[in-house]
Amino acid sequence: MQYVNLDNLRFLLHEMLDVSQLRKIDRFAETDREMIDMTVEAAGQLGDNYLFPHYRSMDKDKAYYEDGRVYVLPCVGEGMRAMGENGYLNATWDLEEGGMQMPLTVVNAGQFALFAANGNIASYATLTAGAANLIRTFGTQELKERYLPKMMSGEWQGTMALTEPQAGSSLSDITTYYEENDDGSYNIKGQKIYISGGDHDSVDNVVHLLLARKKDGPKGTKGVGLFVVPKFLPENGTLVDNHVTTAGIYGKMGQKGYVAAHLMYGEQGETKGYLIGEEFRGLKHMFQMMNEARIGTGLMAAGTASAAYYASLQYAKERPQGRHPDNKDVNAPQVLIIEHADVKRMLLFQKAVVEGSISLLLQCSLYTDLSEHHSDEAVRERNHLILELLTPIAKSYPSEYGNEAVSIGMQVLGGAGYTDDFPLEQHFRDIRVNSIYEGTTTIHGMDLLGRKMLMHNGKAVQLLTEEIQTAIEAAMKYDATRGMATSLAKSLGGVQQVMQHLIGLAQSENPRVFLADATIFLDYFALHVLGWQWLKQAVAAARGLAGEGELSEVFYQSKLRTAEYFYNYELPKVSGHKRILLATERVTLRTTAEELI
Amino acid sequence: MQYVNLDNLRFLLHEMLDVSQLRKIDRFAETDREMIDMTVEAAGQLGDNYLFPHYRSMDKDKAYYEDGRVYVLPCVGEGMRAMGENGYLNATWDLEEGGMQMPLTVVNAGQFALFAANGNIASYATLTAGAANLIRTFGTQELKERYLPKMMSGEWQGTMALTEPQAGSSLSDITTYYEENDDGSYNIKGQKIYISGGDHDSVDNVVHLLLARKKDGPKGTKGVGLFVVPKFLPENGTLVDNHVTTAGIYGKMGQKGYVAAHLMYGEQGETKGYLIGEEFRGLKHMFQMMNEARIGTGLMAAGTASAAYYASLQYAKERPQGRHPDNKDVNAPQVLIIEHADVKRMLLFQKAVVEGSISLLLQCSLYTDLSEHHSDEAVRERNHLILELLTPIAKSYPSEYGNEAVSIGMQVLGGAGYTDDFPLEQHFRDIRVNSIYEGTTTIHGMDLLGRKMLMHNGKAVQLLTEEIQTAIEAAMKYDATRGMATSLAKSLGGVQQVMQHLIGLAQSENPRVFLADATIFLDYFALHVLGWQWLKQAVAAARGLAGEGELSEVFYQSKLRTAEYFYNYELPKVSGHKRILLATERVTLRTTAEELI
Repeated sequence: MQYVNLDNLRFLLHEMLDVSQLRKIDRFAETDREMIDMTVEAAGQLGDNYLFPHYRSMDKDKAYYEDGRVYVLPCVGEGMRAMGENGYLNATWDLEEGGMQMPLTVVNAGQFALFAANGNIASYATLTAGAANLIRTFGTQELKERYLPKMMSGEWQGTMALTEPQAGSSLSDITTYYEENDDGSYNIKGQKIYISGGDHDSVDNVVHLLLARKKDGPKGTKGVGLFVVPKFLPENGTLVDNHVTTAGIYGKMGQKGYVAAHLMYGEQGETKGYLIGEEFRGLKHMFQMMNEARIGTGLMAAGTASAAYYASLQYAKERPQGRHPDNKDVNAPQVLIIEHADVKRMLLFQKAVVEGSISLLLQCSLYTDLSEHHSDEAVRERNHLILELLTPIAKSYPSEYGNEAVSIGMQVLGGAGYTDDFPLEQHFRDIRVNSIYEGTTTIHGMDLLGRKMLMHNGKAVQLLTEEIQTAIEAAMKYDATRGMATSLAKSLGGVQQVMQHLIGLAQSENPRVFLADATIFLDYFALHVLGWQWLKQAVAAARGLAGEGELSEVFYQSKLRTAEYFYNYELPKVSGHKRILLATERVTLRTTAEELI
Repeated sequence: MQYVNLDNLRFLLHEMLDVSQLRKIDRFAETDREMIDMTVEAAGQLGDNYLFPHYRSMDKDKAYYEDGRVYVLPCVGEGMRAMGENGYLNATWDLEEGGMQMPLTVVNAGQFALFAANGNIASYATLTAGAANLIRTFGTQELKERYLPKMMSGEWQGTMALTEPQAGSSLSDITTYYEENDDGSYNIKGQKIYISGGDHDSVDNVVHLLLARKKDGPKGTKGVGLFVVPKFLPENGTLVDNHVTTAGIYGKMGQKGYVAAHLMYGEQGETKGYLIGEEFRGLKHMFQMMNEARIGTGLMAAGTASAAYYASLQYAKERPQGRHPDNKDVNAPQVLIIEHADVKRMLLFQKAVVEGSISLLLQCSLYTDLSEHHSDEAVRERNHLILELLTPIAKSYPSEYGNEAVSIGMQVLGGAGYTDDFPLEQHFRDIRVNSIYEGTTTIHGMDLLGRKMLMHNGKAVQLLTEEIQTAIEAAMKYDATRGMATSLAKSLGGVQQVMQHLIGLAQSENPRVFLADATIFLDYFALHVLGWQWLKQAVAAARGLAGEGELSEVFYQSKLRTAEYFYNYELPKVSGHKRILLATERVTLRTTAEELI
């Protein structure tokens, strides 16, 4: 059963993004075509062999908690170690750090395939990679030597321990605290909830990257430090209990094989932690990894939507049902449901969401590579700004529209989709959490409109507009894409109008008014960003049809049809958003809590 | 914990719909204010005592199949019998039939409360009522006497046995067949799948209302008859096995306490069935009940969305998190999340969907009462036509938007909403099937655009337009509603434009082109219909604020705020739909199955 289209990844990397441009950067000089293709291919094989076969069973035989321990299926550890052995957990690291010095763009293409194969196992692994990356960036040499090898091999789990009962989205309100010991270590005390991968029996140790507040220190985000807090302290080749207690795991609607734990630190004995980075800059350090974590969440969502799309597609190509409106002859055989216009619409929607999402996510990964490794500081800064602007969208669009795409995918199967005879119902439950992970959609709307649109006097928006303009100009050259280019250009005029209106509100009114509809603005802006991505894909497809590509004619035709679908059915939705955003008052603000009955 | 607002039902029945108008009809002469209020009150008590307490446990201890039998929790039978004893299963029937001769409008207000309390138990009961209604309408006196008393008391389960493995949405393709016996009974042979309530141990018998085709008879819908097929034949006071075999039940994503069975008839012995109605008009007979069944599905969806709304609302009123954008002081206490603009927006969306849905459903119920029982044939016909037009919307809007509302409700809770510490995750899984039950949304789009909009030369649309015009005129009288009325009138001009365009396509092109975007048209038209319902509610609220109502000022304010939300955030979405529908070509039709890769 298919869950990903590797050809599409090759298309995006080579024909749309021209990832070979990165070879001009010294660090990536060795990243040739063969290495890139092998990476994508290897991800497909890892997925086929270690991840996809266990997707359904991890849901049926879900993780469970008993007597202070958490149990998962052995496939979790096996998959993590397979990913580790294949270098997937630190492929982007320098050669001398044990990495492969690969561009994130290429690695993320592979990660997408792994998430599509089995988002539950892939998440354990990528979470570990993210935690390790914090130690690599901010940790002492000693900490690196002590923790990174086992994390990179997939033998130890890494986590991000942020959320607390009274502090979900509001990290400035955490209360878990630390006190310094004489030996330079710290004692940690408090509780963390919803900690993904927080504890399980498929690894030998769990390493928490934890935010804590200095006891009696400053309030708010200022008093917060970042700590390495292992479940077991590695000492002289043995593992010593560090008194991290697992109080339980959450009964989640989906991702039932991917543990979310409630943890207690320092309650049944001393829990030691090791500060990394600057003492009071813990939140800032953590957030330096946030762009990648958010793109990771987008990849997870897009991967699940991809698996759902291929499951729906297969069903639609095999299931006969009904006849066309112009053929009422009951003696005629039923047609395959893929022949029905509305089923095609639903499949095109799924495909548009999946391929639009991964296109944007790889685009952001490319901006990441350029912003981190280009030799020219101006280029790095430019790419960093665009990345900052796009990140809330790269996280939210695949999550929100991925939910909708999987729901539509279930609808393609009708009643069958609602049963566990097919994987759609698991995809539907699994993907839903992505709109909550790494900041809810509301948080990202506030981030986009309240910070990113305005930062450096709108510099990021200006840079992105230049990129979009370049794509529009390229698209004007082909008959197949000229109409789309015109549509997008016209629609961008609306964005300008909306921004002027909102900035007017920001100047004349309380910030609450300016930000009240930030979530709707996020969706509005995102549809334009996706329009840009579809334009770029369509141009690459048009070039492919003109003989300048390596894929099949039907691949390019398919890509163009999906782009046309996006322009005919998705982009027009912005007309509704625009009307909402151009309103001068906000009934949501006028409505009091008492009136909500 | 609240799951429904009974005041809102009183508001809709008395102040918006003026259900007392029905007393002018002889049949309803006794339906006075006290009786109506008692019915609503009694539904709330039934819900509180028999239904709501078991909602979560029916999910956790789900229905299961073992050795040919299906087991459910005893609360299923207890709830059914409680509803039966309270007369809820045949309240609309004539007094001489053992009913209470109540208007459907009043009964459905109560049903909504019961669905909100526990859609799983309520569904067993209403399905039984629907099956019984078919026997009542088309059955012989003997069949009525044999089956109805036990069904009405909730001791026997009724089902609708339509779907077969090869015939889901396409009922003309069923193959289960019948042969006549010498004694006037029939032998039934074949399989039915996804049969809700198809078998369980909480009742003494199951009575299937089953569609079957005459062996070697005409193909298509013409050869189909409607049969009463009991699991056990009631003979001389005992129950005799009728060889209906339960092959298994489906593993559903939600509604896990509400069985969907795979049944085999006549495979392990003879299965007897009793024809009701005319031999070859089975599908037509079944469909005479379809309007009610579809409104029932709408009620189920709206009920679940109602329960989810109150769960979200309670959480939002208790959970402190974050601060306002204009207050960054970390020493200030966190505010309740209901104070955040985007949380208010989400709650208003939920409330708008719930209250808009139940408003429309009761409106349709009122049209049903008038179409069935008014003394003037012209009035009956008029109301019947409007009902026919609105039914696909009354089924689909609560289902589709109910899904979205529950998802948004989960989002209000953030990570907590994804866990089974709260009921939202069950609401989310449970409500999803309503977009599939009783015809998928696609089917209803085709029904609306392909049949209902055009029937009798657009007569139904014209009649509905008159109703909407009346509401607009009433709304022009109040400051609070004038703006909404103007918006709706303007937007209806767009509907006319879209219809002209589509009818043009119907005349110049293949019907496939005309119908390709029927699902989008359904959504487009539905938002206008809901706009009308919100206008009617807003006018009643304005009257209430002017002293002409019985509810509290805050109730009316709340109603107006929600209407304003609908007009500011929901109705504007039609701009996007309109752009899509006014397109002259359909990429969905141009895309071939081979291009979907």
